[in-house]
Amino acid sequence: MEIVTLKKLAELLNVSQSSVSKALKDSHEIGQETKNRIKALAQELNYKPNASASSLRRKSSKTIGVVVPLITNSFYALAMNGIETVAQAKDHHVLIYLTYETYKKEVDSIRHLQNGIVDGVLLSISRGTTDYEHLRELKSRNIPLVFFDRVCESMNGPWVTVNNHESGYAATEHLIKNGCKSVAYLSFANHLSTTGNRLKGYLEALKKCDLHLDEELIIECTNNDEENYKKIKKLLQSKNCPHGIFASIERLALITYHVCKELKLKIPNDLKIISFSNLETASLLKPSLSTMTPNAFEIGRKAAEILFENIEKKNFKGKLERITIPASLIERESSQLLP
Amino acid sequence: MEIVTLKKLAELLNVSQSSVSKALKDSHEIGQETKNRIKALAQELNYKPNASASSLRRKSSKTIGVVVPLITNSFYALAMNGIETVAQAKDHHVLIYLTYETYKKEVDSIRHLQNGIVDGVLLSISRGTTDYEHLRELKSRNIPLVFFDRVCESMNGPWVTVNNHESGYAATEHLIKNGCKSVAYLSFANHLSTTGNRLKGYLEALKKCDLHLDEELIIECTNNDEENYKKIKKLLQSKNCPHGIFASIERLALITYHVCKELKLKIPNDLKIISFSNLETASLLKPSLSTMTPNAFEIGRKAAEILFENIEKKNFKGKLERITIPASLIERESSQLLP
Repeated sequence: MEIVTLKKLAELLNVSQSSVSKALKDSHEIGQETKNRIKALAQELNYKPNASASSLRRKSSKTIGVVVPLITNSFYALAMNGIETVAQAKDHHVLIYLTYETYKKEVDSIRHLQNGIVDGVLLSISRGTTDYEHLRELKSRNIPLVFFDRVCESMNGPWVTVNNHESGYAATEHLIKNGCKSVAYLSFANHLSTTGNRLKGYLEALKKCDLHLDEELIIECTNNDEENYKKIKKLLQSKNCPHGIFASIERLALITYHVCKELKLKIPNDLKIISFSNLETASLLKPSLSTMTPNAFEIGRKAAEILFENIEKKNFKGKLERITIPASLIERESSQLLP
Repeated sequence: MEIVTLKKLAELLNVSQSSVSKALKDSHEIGQETKNRIKALAQELNYKPNASASSLRRKSSKTIGVVVPLITNSFYALAMNGIETVAQAKDHHVLIYLTYETYKKEVDSIRHLQNGIVDGVLLSISRGTTDYEHLRELKSRNIPLVFFDRVCESMNGPWVTVNNHESGYAATEHLIKNGCKSVAYLSFANHLSTTGNRLKGYLEALKKCDLHLDEELIIECTNNDEENYKKIKKLLQSKNCPHGIFASIERLALITYHVCKELKLKIPNDLKIISFSNLETASLLKPSLSTMTPNAFEIGRKAAEILFENIEKKNFKGKLERITIPASLIERESSQLLP
C-alpha cells in the first residue's frame, strides 16, 4: 500500500501542502468547509502525519531534559520529584543534566539537547551564565524551554519561580522584629534572578525598618566553600559582627553553623540566623534552623506542566506564563526572640 | 566525490568486508601483510569508518548514562561528582535517570539508553528490581555496564561498592562496645546487595559479641516514611525497646530522631544511634550523628573509570573488576559511651 503523504493529499484536493497541514492542525487561517473536506480525505486514506516522508515535523522523543546547576542542594532534588510526577503522567522520560554552576557545561548540555533527543527543556540557570545565545539557539530550533527557579529575566520565555523579592524582605524583617539591630546578607551571585531579588528584598527591609545599610555586611560568597568559611569567620570576628544573618542559600547557613561552633558563638543568643532552604534536617539541627522554604515540588510540577502545554501545542501563541510561587517562613530556634 | 564504503574497499582489495573491518581495528586475526595492504588503500581513499553507510559500527555518542534510585540521598549526589570528574576528562556528557526505586522505571530507563544515545551505563539497582532480564538485554547489545553501590551479585559484570558486610559488623560492634546490650537493625530491602550485606554484618557482630538475636529487633522499613515512622515508634515504645539502633540508610536515622523528639527519648542517654550516611549535616544535628560513611565520591569516580576502560577497549577480555571501597566509622555524640 502506498504511503499517503501531505503532498499526495494536497494534489488530490488541489490545495497547497501548507493548507493541508494547517487544516489538520485546526488553524483558524483555513475556512471550516475546506477544513472538513481535507480532514475527511485524510481520514479516508488513513493519513498519518509521522509516516509522511516529506514532513519535517520532529518526531516525539517521549523525553524531556532538565538542566540544573547541582543536586547537592535539596531544592533541586525535591523539584525533580514534581517534574517527574508530570512527566510520568505524560509517559515521558526525564533526562537530568548537571552544569556544576558553569557556563561551559550549560552550553554543552543545551547543545546536546538540540540533537532531537528531547521534546522540551526545563532549565535553572547556572551561576556562571551571563550570556544567553545558547538559549536563543535552542528556541530558534523550536524546542520549548521553560525556566524554573533561576530564570532569565531578559528572555522572552515562560518561567516558574519563588517570590524572591518578597521572601527576602520577609526574612530580613523577621530578624529585625526578633531584635537584630544589624543584619548581614550572605549573598551568592547577585546577577541570578533568585539571589539577586533576595538581596533587593533585604535592602528594602532595612530601609523600611530604618536600619543603616552597611555595605560591609553584604558578604559575597562563591562556589568555594573554604573561602566562604573564611569570609564568614572574618565577619563574625570583626567589631562589626552583626546581630543577625540572612543566608541566601542553605549551604551558607551550614557554613555559618560550623563557624559559630569554632568561635563558640551561641545561636540564637549571640547571633540569629535565617536561610533560604529546603533542608530536610533543618528541624533536627542544633539549634533548629529557621528557614524561608520554597515550595520546590510545586515549582517543578508547575514548570513541567507549562512545558508540556508548549510541547503539545506547537504553535501556541497564548499568554506568556510567568508564575511566582510564595515561599513559607518557618520560624525555629535559630532566629528566636529571647526574653 | 563518491563516499568510500567498507564494501567498496573490500571489492577493490578482493577480500571480505569483515576482513577489512578487522584489519582496520588491528585484529590479530588478520595477517600483518594483509593489514598493511588494507590500511594503505583505506588511507589513500580517505576512508572514514563513520561515513560508511553499510557499517553497523556504533558511532560514539560522547555520552554516558547514570541510572540511580533517587537523589534525595546524599550518597548519590556525591557519587555523581566523582562520575562527573572522569566524564569531563573524557569529554563525555552525563545523563542522569532516576528510577524512584521502581522496577518499571529502571527497565524503561535501560531500554531508553539502548537507542544509541549513550556509550555506556552506570547503574545502582532500584529497590523494586528482582529480575535482571533488562540488563542482559543491554549487555547483548554490547553496551558496557558497570554497577556501583547497589550491585547485581548474580550477574557477570564489573562493579564498585562499599564493604557493606564489614561495615555493618563494625557499626554494630561499635554500639555494643559503647554499652548497648541490645541493638535493633532498621533494614531496607534485604535483597539489595548493600543493605542485605549490612544485615549480615549486624548478625555476625551479635553472634561474635554473644548477644541474643531477637528477630523483633530487625525492623523492615520501606519507601513509605509514614509507615516507617510508625514502626520505629512502636519499637521504641515496646517493652523490647533496644539500647541501640543501627540504621541501614540515613533516612531511617532521621526518622528515628523525629520519633525520639516526639517520645522525649534522649540520644545517646536513652538510645544510641549509628547510621550508614553521607549526610552533610550529620555533625550539626542535635545530637551529632555517628555515621558509617561510604567514600561516595571515590565509588563514583572508580566506577566511571572502569566504564571508560570498557568503552574504549570494546573487546576487552581482561579480569572482571570488582572493587570494594571501605566506609569510615565516624564516632559522634549519638553513640557516645556515657560515664
